[in-house]
Amino acid sequence: MNIVLLDPRQTESEYWSISSKRQLEHLQQHLEITVGDTLKVGIREGKRYLTEIVEVTEQAIKLKPLKEESVPAKLPVTLIVAMPRPKVLRRLIMDSVTLGVEKMILLHSYRVDKSYWQTPFLQQLDHYVTLGLEQAGDTVAPQIEIHKRFKPFVEDVLPGLITAERPAYVAHPYVEQPMPFAIDHPCTIVIGPEGGFIPYEIDLLIKNGCQALSLGNRIIRTETVIPYVFGRLFSTC
Amino acid sequence: MNIVLLDPRQTESEYWSISSKRQLEHLQQHLEITVGDTLKVGIREGKRYLTEIVEVTEQAIKLKPLKEESVPAKLPVTLIVAMPRPKVLRRLIMDSVTLGVEKMILLHSYRVDKSYWQTPFLQQLDHYVTLGLEQAGDTVAPQIEIHKRFKPFVEDVLPGLITAERPAYVAHPYVEQPMPFAIDHPCTIVIGPEGGFIPYEIDLLIKNGCQALSLGNRIIRTETVIPYVFGRLFSTC
Repeated sequence: MNIVLLDPRQTESEYWSISSKRQLEHLQQHLEITVGDTLKVGIREGKRYLTEIVEVTEQAIKLKPLKEESVPAKLPVTLIVAMPRPKVLRRLIMDSVTLGVEKMILLHSYRVDKSYWQTPFLQQLDHYVTLGLEQAGDTVAPQIEIHKRFKPFVEDVLPGLITAERPAYVAHPYVEQPMPFAIDHPCTIVIGPEGGFIPYEIDLLIKNGCQALSLGNRIIRTETVIPYVFGRLFSTC
Repeated sequence: MNIVLLDPRQTESEYWSISSKRQLEHLQQHLEITVGDTLKVGIREGKRYLTEIVEVTEQAIKLKPLKEESVPAKLPVTLIVAMPRPKVLRRLIMDSVTLGVEKMILLHSYRVDKSYWQTPFLQQLDHYVTLGLEQAGDTVAPQIEIHKRFKPFVEDVLPGLITAERPAYVAHPYVEQPMPFAIDHPCTIVIGPEGGFIPYEIDLLIKNGCQALSLGNRIIRTETVIPYVFGRLFSTC
């Protein structure tokens, strides 16, 4: 937790107040904060501030804003990812938010086990988004969409996301052409499931405007390939 | 598991044999392999082959090598990382091996909880290295060293790893100079603990030859920053 995210309602009066159990526990037990310390605070969907702690009780921490700080810019990227196993989903959401994706789409695919869509984590996405934002020092949640049918998404929705200035890349181990690096334009990136997309899916993605590109001859897990490909694509950010 | 790693002793006769419980379970239950299927196999510290399955029993899978395949090259990097929490350690080892680090050093630092060094996972590193190699399709384990004292390591060992052709970079959020990208030379990269290195540690790293460089103004978790920085540094690999 590198900032504390507050709801705008918590910042309406002169002194602001942290009252969530999770945030209080982290600040009091892990960071051992005390009156007079400064604390970085973000207002959901809003600005970020350096604050000073003016009161600490068991039920709340009271803050006074000192000065505005800048909110980190998003990466200009839409991440489309095949729905991962529930345990991986949490980390994947957190990490993608931390890294700054603008928009995320969770997509069904042949090698996605249908049971993955039943996970209760899908009802708690907002919690993992919050953790990702608090890690990054960001305040603005990315848009997250769920598409449970591969073909209608790829044929009807995906082409609307692609333009000449905003290409779509699908990471694919069996092509020669390498993924670009240090790009200076927005893009959409498509990441397959464990075991990869099946050839029919790759063909359909290509037919609908994606470029299949290689990340080298090592096969990297979904949750690891996401930071890897962002580090590569946006190395000038 | 994208290849099955075998011990050289398992590949001495005309037919090779898989007998490890973990590998048999994965192949029979998850991949549902059957006689006549091909299977990618690596020999520890050796070559990689495409093989054909000639017999499947509960106790063993018998293979016939068909042809040699190439083993992916390592990234020319030494990764020095502050010892993470045990749960993170496993993923961090697996991912670093998958990504192809040549050498890893686990290092103590002020913000590393001393209890982390008691984890039983440190006795099982070889298992996580194997999982990482099997994910990547690699056969060669990186060298892993453990240094439980920060100052002696930084003053006495680290300078010997650094040359003009092989610089050392420490990822640090509070500097202006950005981490390079698409480099074409080997390097050492130093990643701090949760909460970062303390100023004394950063100063000592710099004094002993490291360059403190920024990865942008988002604060990324240790296990996420590793693929992120490798994607950035080695984008032409």
